[in-house]
Amino acid sequence: MKERLVRLIEAMMAGNVRALARLISFVEDRQEGWKDAMKSIYGTTGHACVFGITGSPGAGKSTLTNEIAKRLLRREHTIGIIAVDPSSPYSGGALLGDRLRMRDICTDRNIFIRSMATRGVLGGLCQAARDVARILDAAGKDVILIETVGVGQDEIEVVSASDYVMLVTCPGQGDGIQAIKAGVMEIADLFVVNKADKDGADELASEISAMLDLSTEMEVKKQSVIKTSAVTKEGLDDLVENLEGFLNEKKSGSKRVRDQVRQEILSIMEREIVGILRERIMSNGRLEGALDLVMADRSDPYTEVDEMLSGYSLMEHLKKTEEGDKP
Amino acid sequence: MKERLVRLIEAMMAGNVRALARLISFVEDRQEGWKDAMKSIYGTTGHACVFGITGSPGAGKSTLTNEIAKRLLRREHTIGIIAVDPSSPYSGGALLGDRLRMRDICTDRNIFIRSMATRGVLGGLCQAARDVARILDAAGKDVILIETVGVGQDEIEVVSASDYVMLVTCPGQGDGIQAIKAGVMEIADLFVVNKADKDGADELASEISAMLDLSTEMEVKKQSVIKTSAVTKEGLDDLVENLEGFLNEKKSGSKRVRDQVRQEILSIMEREIVGILRERIMSNGRLEGALDLVMADRSDPYTEVDEMLSGYSLMEHLKKTEEGDKP
Repeated sequence: MKERLVRLIEAMMAGNVRALARLISFVEDRQEGWKDAMKSIYGTTGHACVFGITGSPGAGKSTLTNEIAKRLLRREHTIGIIAVDPSSPYSGGALLGDRLRMRDICTDRNIFIRSMATRGVLGGLCQAARDVARILDAAGKDVILIETVGVGQDEIEVVSASDYVMLVTCPGQGDGIQAIKAGVMEIADLFVVNKADKDGADELASEISAMLDLSTEMEVKKQSVIKTSAVTKEGLDDLVENLEGFLNEKKSGSKRVRDQVRQEILSIMEREIVGILRERIMSNGRLEGALDLVMADRSDPYTEVDEMLSGYSLMEHLKKTEEGDKP
Repeated sequence: MKERLVRLIEAMMAGNVRALARLISFVEDRQEGWKDAMKSIYGTTGHACVFGITGSPGAGKSTLTNEIAKRLLRREHTIGIIAVDPSSPYSGGALLGDRLRMRDICTDRNIFIRSMATRGVLGGLCQAARDVARILDAAGKDVILIETVGVGQDEIEVVSASDYVMLVTCPGQGDGIQAIKAGVMEIADLFVVNKADKDGADELASEISAMLDLSTEMEVKKQSVIKTSAVTKEGLDDLVENLEGFLNEKKSGSKRVRDQVRQEILSIMEREIVGILRERIMSNGRLEGALDLVMADRSDPYTEVDEMLSGYSLMEHLKKTEEGDKP
């Protein structure tokens, strides 16, 4: 590993905030040596507890994350926040707004906030978020909050990579329950009904509890439903105490950890192999050639992919290499 | 291609609805011969116009899709609807509700509705939705509506694969604009402010128009903002006329089509190669072996992936094969 990178990692471990930010960018951009950096810090990680915070847009996740972070800071935790933001050219204003709302915490030395774009992340947002969480872990943060903006499949995968998942809803969003139907209920460890000062919060909390009761046959874990309000501050301390409960029980649960590491290995590998293949077929002109044929109605995408891949005999190559490996 | 599959495709092309449903399942499940089926129908496709409908949960997308479909039917279009639903074990009720709201249209011979799960789709929802749209196109549907439940990264990719994208919002969802900040504004061709009978619809429409005006320097296309209400029926005919406008202009725009086909080729290819690699490392025990090392703190995921992939010398293999190809 290059001398400069070694020094960067040392500075990061020593608590240098600029070094932390630079290392994250270094890994995110896949600069040469990024993997060596991840390998060298990996052994120091595994101590942080990662919470995924998801829910529909407008449910108040940013504000809630802010309130949680403030309370965790007071309880002497060190905190990393990963805000998975879209990199829409339109969204600058709205995002700035979010970050402004966080201005009372973002100057604290014990907190580090990082925004991540959902677009243009080579080969998967989920692995990119995992990498950043690992680095924050190595930097000594003991609680990492991953906040997503939307609640789609990719966001679900991002929070699935967390140790615990918090689903944030609020009253007045269409059909209430419909707003949280998007495949997230079964991955949530904790339900938050935010904006509890508004009408309909009690009904929404009851609806969620009823749904959870219905599902106890499927799931063993018992999830809590907590009502919170950033206006009246109702429920916030209660919520943070719940999170601390998770912190304490985290060290167990090795089955879940093994599953997560398996996913991590697979996703790192997929990202690598897709990168290798894309580079090849884009640089050798095969892709544009195939495209020409399809556009001229002389072929179709399925045939072209078959042609490109069968030429490489990948499965045969993999098997043969494995056999050659044997002594 | 097997005799049975040929007959299934013939029946589908002749308008048999059960054959259409069976062919979709056949391709979705990747049953043997699925790719032959796609190749054989590909040449007959390219006539349908595909609209992606996205927006936050609770914005009324299902109801709106229903209203649009009814009006398009009256104008003698044939319609395919792909509802990209989460396959949450909890969501049965809510989804059934959606489909019930559609009951007045779903018995019509000229419409075909298909739900797609967002989970467990091997290698990507986006390609799976593309496959289904292709089949509906081959079956002679001239308008295909792809409706997503959430508004996350994956949903954005799904609707990006459409010819045109409609973004549905409604008043009363948190911060209004915040609700649509999730990276979708720049891909939308048409903005719908639904539930226009509710307070705040005019303000929301103005906000969106203002944002679009701000962005005219970046984008050439001029997008419309239409207010609709399923209660008062306001704006629905206007919306459908707009969609018909897109239908007429569809045949041009070959640049966009080329980009989409390029994406299609890449995503089919990635799905294939990831499948091949997963099968190998899962069947030969390497994955669990690597996992054991990582769990015992004797290695890390990055090192293990390097080990697995470097053994295969993929890049070298790809290059060598290409050189061998040359005459």
